[in-house]
Amino acid sequence: MVFVTRVEHFNAAHKLWNESWSPEKNKEVFGKCSNVNYHGHNYELHVTVKGEVNSETGFVMNAKELGEIMKVKVVDVVDHSNLNMDVPFMQGKFTSAENFAIGIWDELEEEISKQGAQLHCVKLIETQRIYVEYYGK
Amino acid sequence: MVFVTRVEHFNAAHKLWNESWSPEKNKEVFGKCSNVNYHGHNYELHVTVKGEVNSETGFVMNAKELGEIMKVKVVDVVDHSNLNMDVPFMQGKFTSAENFAIGIWDELEEEISKQGAQLHCVKLIETQRIYVEYYGK
Amino acid sequence: MVFVTRVEHFNAAHKLWNESWSPEKNKEVFGKCSNVNYHGHNYELHVTVKGEVNSETGFVMNAKELGEIMKVKVVDVVDHSNLNMDVPFMQGKFTSAENFAIGIWDELEEEISKQGAQLHCVKLIETQRIYVEYYGK
Amino acid sequence: MVFVTRVEHFNAAHKLWNESWSPEKNKEVFGKCSNVNYHGHNYELHVTVKGEVNSETGFVMNAKELGEIMKVKVVDVVDHSNLNMDVPFMQGKFTSAENFAIGIWDELEEEISKQGAQLHCVKLIETQRIYVEYYGK
Amino acid sequence: MVFVTRVEHFNAAHKLWNESWSPEKNKEVFGKCSNVNYHGHNYELHVTVKGEVNSETGFVMNAKELGEIMKVKVVDVVDHSNLNMDVPFMQGKFTSAENFAIGIWDELEEEISKQGAQLHCVKLIETQRIYVEYYGK
Amino acid sequence: MVFVTRVEHFNAAHKLWNESWSPEKNKEVFGKCSNVNYHGHNYELHVTVKGEVNSETGFVMNAKELGEIMKVKVVDVVDHSNLNMDVPFMQGKFTSAENFAIGIWDELEEEISKQGAQLHCVKLIETQRIYVEYYGK
Repeated sequence: MVFVTRVEHFNAAHKLWNESWSPEKNKEVFGKCSNVNYHGHNYELHVTVKGEVNSETGFVMNAKELGEIMKVKVVDVVDHSNLNMDVPFMQGKFTSAENFAIGIWDELEEEISKQGAQLHCVKLIETQRIYVEYYGK
Repeated sequence: MVFVTRVEHFNAAHKLWNESWSPEKNKEVFGKCSNVNYHGHNYELHVTVKGEVNSETGFVMNAKELGEIMKVKVVDVVDHSNLNMDVPFMQGKFTSAENFAIGIWDELEEEISKQGAQLHCVKLIETQRIYVEYYGK
Repeated sequence: MVFVTRVEHFNAAHKLWNESWSPEKNKEVFGKCSNVNYHGHNYELHVTVKGEVNSETGFVMNAKELGEIMKVKVVDVVDHSNLNMDVPFMQGKFTSAENFAIGIWDELEEEISKQGAQLHCVKLIETQRIYVEYYGK
Repeated sequence: MVFVTRVEHFNAAHKLWNESWSPEKNKEVFGKCSNVNYHGHNYELHVTVKGEVNSETGFVMNAKELGEIMKVKVVDVVDHSNLNMDVPFMQGKFTSAENFAIGIWDELEEEISKQGAQLHCVKLIETQRIYVEYYGK
Repeated sequence: MVFVTRVEHFNAAHKLWNESWSPEKNKEVFGKCSNVNYHGHNYELHVTVKGEVNSETGFVMNAKELGEIMKVKVVDVVDHSNLNMDVPFMQGKFTSAENFAIGIWDELEEEISKQGAQLHCVKLIETQRIYVEYYGK
Repeated sequence: MVFVTRVEHFNAAHKLWNESWSPEKNKEVFGKCSNVNYHGHNYELHVTVKGEVNSETGFVMNAKELGEIMKVKVVDVVDHSNLNMDVPFMQGKFTSAENFAIGIWDELEEEISKQGAQLHCVKLIETQRIYVEYYGK
């Protein structure tokens, strides 16, 4: 079994905000991330799949196809968007990096399975100082 | 003469939008950058000063002081903000990287002069693929 | 379960030296790293915690709190220090990256548990060519 | 148990080509990677070993020795080479990153065992967007 | 005047070889870079243009258009190619980074002028250790 | 004229300390950098030379020769050293990045001239946040 990772980039705005809390509580817990007019990030997305090496191609999965799935299912949907307002698969969720990574996993898993590989990890780098990894349930 | 550069990071939301244009014209010229609900970036800011080396310190300018000026004048003002709505020194300007770099220059120049060094360059990295440099008028 | 990593930087001096060996033996085994007057590194520290996502915040653990624990327990103690002479939790140990990572783990583990998350990995990047990872006993 | 990784770089040419396919099929599956006159990469190789920390050195394995093994067994063999034509351990294999990582593992495993550590992972970064990891059978 | 840089990546094979020299002389001067079967690189290309900021857009030049010119004139021509065999604008030239940067400048200069900006610098990063910059004649 | 840059790395300990000042004054001006037992850095050194392209090689200067000069004159002298105690060309100077870059320039300039190129810039990256550039007198 070999693990293959493809990296894509996108830019988005978001804010951390719990509607059931007062503005003061939001400020206390989320700090600057709760700025009402949003802030944003250059996100870097690493998607890792695993599987056996195909003897006819030398590939676990064609990285071009993996890139195409990431583009159609995630990058085209979230790039230059506002995660709190514009992204269907994040509706009703806090846009923390944790929840965003889980949301991306759910978008990708089935499509990758159809290609004969298995989604292994979604790694989402929010800033040079913070990243999250999700390996499924 | 030696050039000293200090690097700081901040995150912000913005959009490119010309109020005197139709939404269609904005879309045509600015593409995804004109998304009405904003997008955002992890900006990386390089500020370069120049001067003679002080014989008592070995410094052109104490990098701690340069960092403090950058923090007070720029980073604390723009970090986790919306450049179109929250930043006094960008009011009434398009928030392109070009204009933003010029705006940062104008915030920093005088304060750096007071420390006996000369502002040489503001380099602003918007994404891994686009950056701008401004050397003053 | 989601994994969250926060990255911090610090600079320190150290040397690799076994007091029970001759200088020649130290030189043979540790090479340039045994230079008697020390050398140093810009260390990059990745601390990964794991846990369930809190439904009120979207966080496994507030990254600000994780950063604060890293600062108080590790960065403020080791930054701009000499690992062989100045750092209480490294006293009596060889200051190899391996031992340093274990020492950092021991400083952090309890404090992170108090926040409801679990320390998963301490990754310490010593140079662009060498890094170590420790996952606990 | 601690994990130690050493990073080395090398440059090589290759192409993806299945001799049993027509040129059209090669083009369809491998795209630009099948260009008959080759293309190339700056490969970045991360080799991770694991083991207990030696109480006399503080090392899992002397990183200098790990680097020397990587140099003799891999880097000197593949650097500035054509993977399809010049590399003995890749003869008769497709030069996908997956197969290349497995080939590197097979070159390194025994030599690292002799040093008292255990090969854990071969990570091969082909471009800034694609990397593979192999942990053995 | 502001300077705007756009970064693109491509992969290519090449070798350094002077046809008028013996193989021995080529080996002596170019070392491993003269390997007859080629080697390759992940090139990183920084193209910097300069100009006044347009008051209607906030741009020196639309970075999308700059990217499109780089794609059509350079990236699509050289990506996944063999610089010695496949690239029209490098025919009959040694494929050193120096000559390649000059060749790229000549491909880009006129097209960028048509957009109202001025080509300032072509920076070509061949490896993490070697890069060249060309500012025109 | 083309500019060619070669990058090398080394690790060193140092402290900022003015012998003619009290410990308190040193602490006040240099902060943590004045820690009496030293701290250290992974320095990254970019040396840029300029010249015409040689029609027989396509080179401004053979990058291997440039690397060899950097190794003999600088890297072998400073790597894994204490800049305040071990480096002949820094004796009697404050080991600020500014002074260190000037010292490196003076070590390299003549040797590079002998190769028919001209030293253009010494860029010394001390940390991810601070770097200096020196272009000669």
